[in-house]
Amino acid sequence: MRAELINTGSELLLGRVLNTHQQWIGKQLTEAGYELAIQQTVPDTGSSIEVAVSGAIERSELVIVTGGLGPTGDDMTRQRIAEFLEVSLVEHQETRDRIISHFQKRNRPMPESVMVQAQVPEGSTVLPNEHGTAPGLAVPTSKGWLILLPGPPRELRPMYTAYVAPFLIEELPPTRQMVTRTIKTMGIGESVVEECINKELSKFVAKGLEIGYCARMGEVDVRMVAYGSSGPRLIKESEVIVRQCLEKYVFGVDEDRLEDFVVRGLTERNQTLVVAESCTGGYLAHRLTNVSGASAVFLAGHCVYSNESKESILGLPRTALEKGAVSQSVAREMAERIRVLHEADYALATTGIAGPTGGTEEKPVGTVYIAISTAQGTRVIKEFNSCDRETFKHVTSQQALNLIRREWYKKTRHSGGL
Amino acid sequence: MRAELINTGSELLLGRVLNTHQQWIGKQLTEAGYELAIQQTVPDTGSSIEVAVSGAIERSELVIVTGGLGPTGDDMTRQRIAEFLEVSLVEHQETRDRIISHFQKRNRPMPESVMVQAQVPEGSTVLPNEHGTAPGLAVPTSKGWLILLPGPPRELRPMYTAYVAPFLIEELPPTRQMVTRTIKTMGIGESVVEECINKELSKFVAKGLEIGYCARMGEVDVRMVAYGSSGPRLIKESEVIVRQCLEKYVFGVDEDRLEDFVVRGLTERNQTLVVAESCTGGYLAHRLTNVSGASAVFLAGHCVYSNESKESILGLPRTALEKGAVSQSVAREMAERIRVLHEADYALATTGIAGPTGGTEEKPVGTVYIAISTAQGTRVIKEFNSCDRETFKHVTSQQALNLIRREWYKKTRHSGGL
Repeated sequence: MRAELINTGSELLLGRVLNTHQQWIGKQLTEAGYELAIQQTVPDTGSSIEVAVSGAIERSELVIVTGGLGPTGDDMTRQRIAEFLEVSLVEHQETRDRIISHFQKRNRPMPESVMVQAQVPEGSTVLPNEHGTAPGLAVPTSKGWLILLPGPPRELRPMYTAYVAPFLIEELPPTRQMVTRTIKTMGIGESVVEECINKELSKFVAKGLEIGYCARMGEVDVRMVAYGSSGPRLIKESEVIVRQCLEKYVFGVDEDRLEDFVVRGLTERNQTLVVAESCTGGYLAHRLTNVSGASAVFLAGHCVYSNESKESILGLPRTALEKGAVSQSVAREMAERIRVLHEADYALATTGIAGPTGGTEEKPVGTVYIAISTAQGTRVIKEFNSCDRETFKHVTSQQALNLIRREWYKKTRHSGGL
Repeated sequence: MRAELINTGSELLLGRVLNTHQQWIGKQLTEAGYELAIQQTVPDTGSSIEVAVSGAIERSELVIVTGGLGPTGDDMTRQRIAEFLEVSLVEHQETRDRIISHFQKRNRPMPESVMVQAQVPEGSTVLPNEHGTAPGLAVPTSKGWLILLPGPPRELRPMYTAYVAPFLIEELPPTRQMVTRTIKTMGIGESVVEECINKELSKFVAKGLEIGYCARMGEVDVRMVAYGSSGPRLIKESEVIVRQCLEKYVFGVDEDRLEDFVVRGLTERNQTLVVAESCTGGYLAHRLTNVSGASAVFLAGHCVYSNESKESILGLPRTALEKGAVSQSVAREMAERIRVLHEADYALATTGIAGPTGGTEEKPVGTVYIAISTAQGTRVIKEFNSCDRETFKHVTSQQALNLIRREWYKKTRHSGGL
């Protein structure tokens, strides 16, 4: 069974908006045993949508289209698809009622233009929108189904989970079993990863294992895919090999993020963490608090952006700051003081020059000091992350979180574990 | 001139990795006067890449392909494209030297496999990679150029800026002038926006103005596009109309984010801001510190995640917290205390239940209190943001930043400005 995804929206092609649907829908399909053969983004014009959709429904049993179902003049998907499938649009009473109640609940005036959203191609199944006004639609095609979904992620995602996923299992059950597993590593290069595991895995590759690599910002993913009834065993045995080869670099699998690993590790150890951030500006706290359950182990984060706040919150002496807030000693003091202040087991601190301005010859943009403090002592590393401001924050936060991972790894080794 | 983008990578289709290239490259092209006609994502398999690329170079003068140039076995782009274009691969000495020096500088062992990256299709132009080992390639086609770029954004972006952008201007100068302008609004629905401006803009639409709308998480973009020599004037006149119609909802244009608006406004007014975050967990500070120049106006952010930290940092009385940290009074106290502590002009505070756990019947997941404090007084709003954890943080931070925008708007009105 072949599946395709078409995202409509000129704003995506103009680079005004990030396309998050591709990743999200791709993940849902993969987990349910479907595989996207191709994804396309086309402009809002009727002809582009028609070319893309008519080609896709000829090739593929499942075609998902996002966007263009809204009430404004550039929303053409519904109308155009009904036209070329040669079915008429009919008003769907339940949707009409839902739209009216949507506006009533919010106490907002209802422009008449919104009612175009209650028009549905004859013979299609309506997928209710519980977070907006445009319903989704499942339209039968000669090979299978064309699923139309609204563009806003807040509307699309709950609709997919509640209506599309069960609909697909019923109408287009996955034809072959697919198992995927991704092993996530940190602190090792992509080509070295491959060199480490390639020979060891060759016998599994001969049996049908597919291996892919993906490198980004300090991490390398090893992605394994296998099909059929022997798939789960193939993946399981391969994972053992990969873990043996890359042991000290592995921090998780599949959806795991480094922050998940850290929060999980703290929870298991019944330990606590605080952070003092200068150059990462709250991003480290943000990553940690994205993990559900973080509140039990992450006590507090301080974004001490100005020297005054480093003084008033952390009690750092002004003389030290005046000598240079981006220094090994300030990073050390930040970590130690914040740990003691909150009586935490671990403290992380960052101070550096994110840029684009603020660099000097001695300390160019990209210079950063990162400290980890525990009751046993404090360690500071110096890194040089030469990249744009947001990447700088991400890479620096990776290096900071990795300091905790390395603490734990060292301990396990010393205690004879693993 | 027609342009297409092809992103290769099974990890994108499996939903393991977010495709940020589409937005970034789309934006670069738009700004330079090119327009993407379509974007596709295809798996890492040689045949998928071949089908996509061979179709694209027949249709389009400019085809950009990302990914698949690395050293691992699943990197097939270079090899496969040389095969179907029937050109041989030759070793590029300068690239070979660059790769050797890349590993030497980092003091890392060099696996022999990396040298495949020095192989280039005969007759192509090499685009040096200053942040990695795989160079980009510009390969001549019958209609124009095929540009191959490495997958990692850290490598692709600087390469594009330094080599691809000037190469395109030289080899494929844009054939028609395109002007785009996006007006960004907040606090008004998409269909109401259209209703407000539609009639007023109809005479410009008759002259060739294209209008698009994009709604997401509290914001609605009005995107205007016009072509040819009259384009700039058409856009300029339309912008005046849009601003008149939507005045109190407009916060910026084009790339402006609400955080840019806030930091810019503070800088102009020579005022300062601090934040105390519970449920937004550092995300508000993160957004503010993403803005270059924030350090002059954003003094500090405190992610007071535990009740202990609300007590120790903000001095909130334990009795108040025990009655419920998610409350109007706690939000108020957080904002007032943090503002006084740092002697700031504005303080924002958030406290709420991000979920997925922690809700009660009285205060379900999604409940949030947001406070703004100034020397004139403190105001608290209650919102209900029922969505996933990360969206919750984003929407809540939007509402918080919008409180400052509304303060300023009210002041301008009262002082008779605008």
